[in-house]
Amino acid sequence: MYIAVDAMGGDYAPCAVVEGALQAAQEYGIAVLLVGDREVILRELHNAGGEESALVAIRHASEAIEMGDSPVAALRHKPDSSLQVAFQQVKAGEAAAVVSAGNTGAVLALAVTVLGNLAGVDRPAIVTALPTLGGHAYLLDAGANVECKPLHLVQFAVMGEVYARVVRGVAEPRVGVLSNGEEDSKGTDTTRATHEMLKKLPLHYVGYVEGRDLNSGKADVIVTDGFTGNVALKTMEGFSDFLQGKLRSVFTARWRNKLAYLLIRSSFADLRASLDPSEIGGAPFLGTDGLAIIAHGASTPKAIKNAIRVAEQSWRGDINRQIVDSLHTLTESALLPPELKRGRKFWTQLRERFRHTRESHDPQAPGSAEEEKKE
Amino acid sequence: MYIAVDAMGGDYAPCAVVEGALQAAQEYGIAVLLVGDREVILRELHNAGGEESALVAIRHASEAIEMGDSPVAALRHKPDSSLQVAFQQVKAGEAAAVVSAGNTGAVLALAVTVLGNLAGVDRPAIVTALPTLGGHAYLLDAGANVECKPLHLVQFAVMGEVYARVVRGVAEPRVGVLSNGEEDSKGTDTTRATHEMLKKLPLHYVGYVEGRDLNSGKADVIVTDGFTGNVALKTMEGFSDFLQGKLRSVFTARWRNKLAYLLIRSSFADLRASLDPSEIGGAPFLGTDGLAIIAHGASTPKAIKNAIRVAEQSWRGDINRQIVDSLHTLTESALLPPELKRGRKFWTQLRERFRHTRESHDPQAPGSAEEEKKE
Repeated sequence: MYIAVDAMGGDYAPCAVVEGALQAAQEYGIAVLLVGDREVILRELHNAGGEESALVAIRHASEAIEMGDSPVAALRHKPDSSLQVAFQQVKAGEAAAVVSAGNTGAVLALAVTVLGNLAGVDRPAIVTALPTLGGHAYLLDAGANVECKPLHLVQFAVMGEVYARVVRGVAEPRVGVLSNGEEDSKGTDTTRATHEMLKKLPLHYVGYVEGRDLNSGKADVIVTDGFTGNVALKTMEGFSDFLQGKLRSVFTARWRNKLAYLLIRSSFADLRASLDPSEIGGAPFLGTDGLAIIAHGASTPKAIKNAIRVAEQSWRGDINRQIVDSLHTLTESALLPPELKRGRKFWTQLRERFRHTRESHDPQAPGSAEEEKKE
Repeated sequence: MYIAVDAMGGDYAPCAVVEGALQAAQEYGIAVLLVGDREVILRELHNAGGEESALVAIRHASEAIEMGDSPVAALRHKPDSSLQVAFQQVKAGEAAAVVSAGNTGAVLALAVTVLGNLAGVDRPAIVTALPTLGGHAYLLDAGANVECKPLHLVQFAVMGEVYARVVRGVAEPRVGVLSNGEEDSKGTDTTRATHEMLKKLPLHYVGYVEGRDLNSGKADVIVTDGFTGNVALKTMEGFSDFLQGKLRSVFTARWRNKLAYLLIRSSFADLRASLDPSEIGGAPFLGTDGLAIIAHGASTPKAIKNAIRVAEQSWRGDINRQIVDSLHTLTESALLPPELKRGRKFWTQLRERFRHTRESHDPQAPGSAEEEKKE
C-alpha cells in the first residue's frame, strides 16, 4: 500500500519533500506515491539520485495549493491540486495515508470533505508530540477545533490513547485533561463534565493535569480544546525561542563564555536535535476515514521521511479500526452517561429524518439542517 | 500611608516576610504594617536586626490562614486572621494596600468581599509580568476568572494599560488579545467580540497575539480569560523546568562540559536572576477598591521587598482612580457598543431594584439575586 505524499506542499517543496520520500523508500522500504507535477517531481527525483519505480511512484496533478489559499479555494477552485488528488487516492483505496507539509487549513478541510469522519467521531483532532524528560506526551487537539464539548474531548482521549499505544508503543497510556489546577473543582464547565466522564471509562485516566505537566511526563495523552492547545503549544515555542536568544547572548558576552561554548557546542547540538520537531514525524490528524499526517511547513527531508514512517506505522497498526472499536464499545456500554446516549440517539434520529426529508424535497429540510448544525 | 503586610502568609513566613518588610522600610523608606501574631513578629524583627518603629509598625491578629484553607474558611471561620485584618486596615483607610504571599484563593476572596469592586469593574483580575527580551509583558487575567465575557476582557485591557503605564513606566502600552492566530477570523466568539470592541477604543491596540508572542515583546499588555492565562503561564514554567533539567544533564555529561559550566557559571546565575519572579515583585490583583499584591508562595525576603515596592508605587500612582476614570470615559462615550451600554443599564437597574426589594423584605428578593448572579 502506498503512502501518498503531497510533493508540492511545504516551504522547501518539492525538493525537500521528494528527497524525504526517496529516503523513506530506501531506508524503510515504504512504498511512496509522489503526487504533483510529474515533470518537476521527476527532475527532483533525479537530482536526489533516485528514479521512478514500483516503490517510488508518481501521480500527476496539475495544480498546487499555496500557503495563502483559503480552504474553500483548496476545495472548490483547485480540483486537481496535488493535495486533493492525494486524498482521492486514499479515498479510492490506492493509498493508505496522505502526508503533507503544505497549507494546514487545506489539509484539514480536504481530509474531512474527501474522507469523511470515522464512525463515532464528531470532531477529528490534531495530535502533537511534546518532549518530556522520559520521551513524549501527545496533546490533542492542537488546533483543529477551537470550541469543544465534553463529548468531543472524550473522543480525543480515546483517539489519543489508541495512537500512543499502537503507533508510539506506550504500554498503557495515562490520559489527562488540561486544566488550571488539579482539584476536581477546577476547570471550566466543559473540563469538569469531561473529567467526570473519563473517570468512568476503561482508560488509564490520571485526572486533571496543568500546563506545567505538558513536559513533565505526568501523562502520555493530554486532551484540551484546539484554542487552549494552540496557545499552550505556541507559548512553549515562543518561550523556547526567548531562552535560546538569552543563551546566545550569554555565550557571546565575553571570552570565557565563548570558550565555554566551544567546549559544549556538540552537546548543545545534541540537545537541540532531541527537541527538533522533525525527529518526531509530523502531527497526525485523527478521526477521518483514512489517515492524514501534517508535517511542519519548514519540513526538511528528514522530517518528511519520519512523517511517512508515522503514516505507515499508523496504517500497519490499523489505528482507525481500533479507534472505531473503542468508541463503539464506549457508546454501546453503560459507561457513557445516559443523557449523552439519549442525546446521540436524538441527533441520529434527527439526522435520519433530515436525510429522509431531503430526499423527498420536503421544505422543512433546511430548518432541520440548521438545527443539526447547532449540535 | 502604610502598606499592610500579611506576616503569617507564605512558605517561609513569618521569617522571610518580616525580613523583606524590614528591607523595604530600610531601603525605600516605605512605611510597613506587619499584621499577625505580635510576639512572633517581634521575635522575627529582632532576629533580622530591626525593631518596632513608626516605619515598621505591628498590628496583632490572633489567627492565620493556612495554604489548605478554603476561601470560605478564610472569610467566615477566621475573622481575626492576619490576612482579613490586613484587608480591614485598607478598608478603614489605615493602609494603602495588602501584600501577601499566603493562600491566593483567600486573598482573592477577601479582597473582593472586604474591599468590593472598583466602580465600572465587573471582574477584578490578576496581572502577571512575563519576561521579554526588552523587558516585560503584562498578562491578565492570570487565573482569577476562569470564564470571561468580552466586556470583562475589555476591562482587563483598560486595567492592564493603566498598570503598565503608571506603575511600570511603559510610555504607550501596546495592548493585545491572546488568540490562536493573528487573522480576524481566528479565536473564539469571546475573543472576536473583544477584538472588535478594542479596535474602537482609544488604546494602542495591536490586535490578536499568539502564545509565541507572550515573550516576544510584541505587546505590553495581553488579555485573556483566567483559564487560558493559567495554562499559558504554567506551560511556560513547566517548559522552563524541563529545559533546565536538560541543561543540567548536558553540563554534567562529561569533563569538558563540566569545565564549560565552571567558565560560564556566573553568567548563568545572572540569566537565572533575570528570569527570577522574585525580582518582579508579585502579581497585583486589580479591580478592587483598594490594592492587593499577591507574592509567590515561596517568596524570599527580596520578593517581599519588591512586592511592597510595587504596592507603594501603585498607590502613589493612584492607579485605582485612573482605572475608574478610564472605564468611566469608555462607558459614557460612544466608543462602547450601544448593546453593551444598554446591557449595563439594565443590570444597574436590576441591581437597584434588588437592593430596594431586599431592604423592604420583599419575597421577590432572592429571585432577583439569582437573576443578578447569572449576569
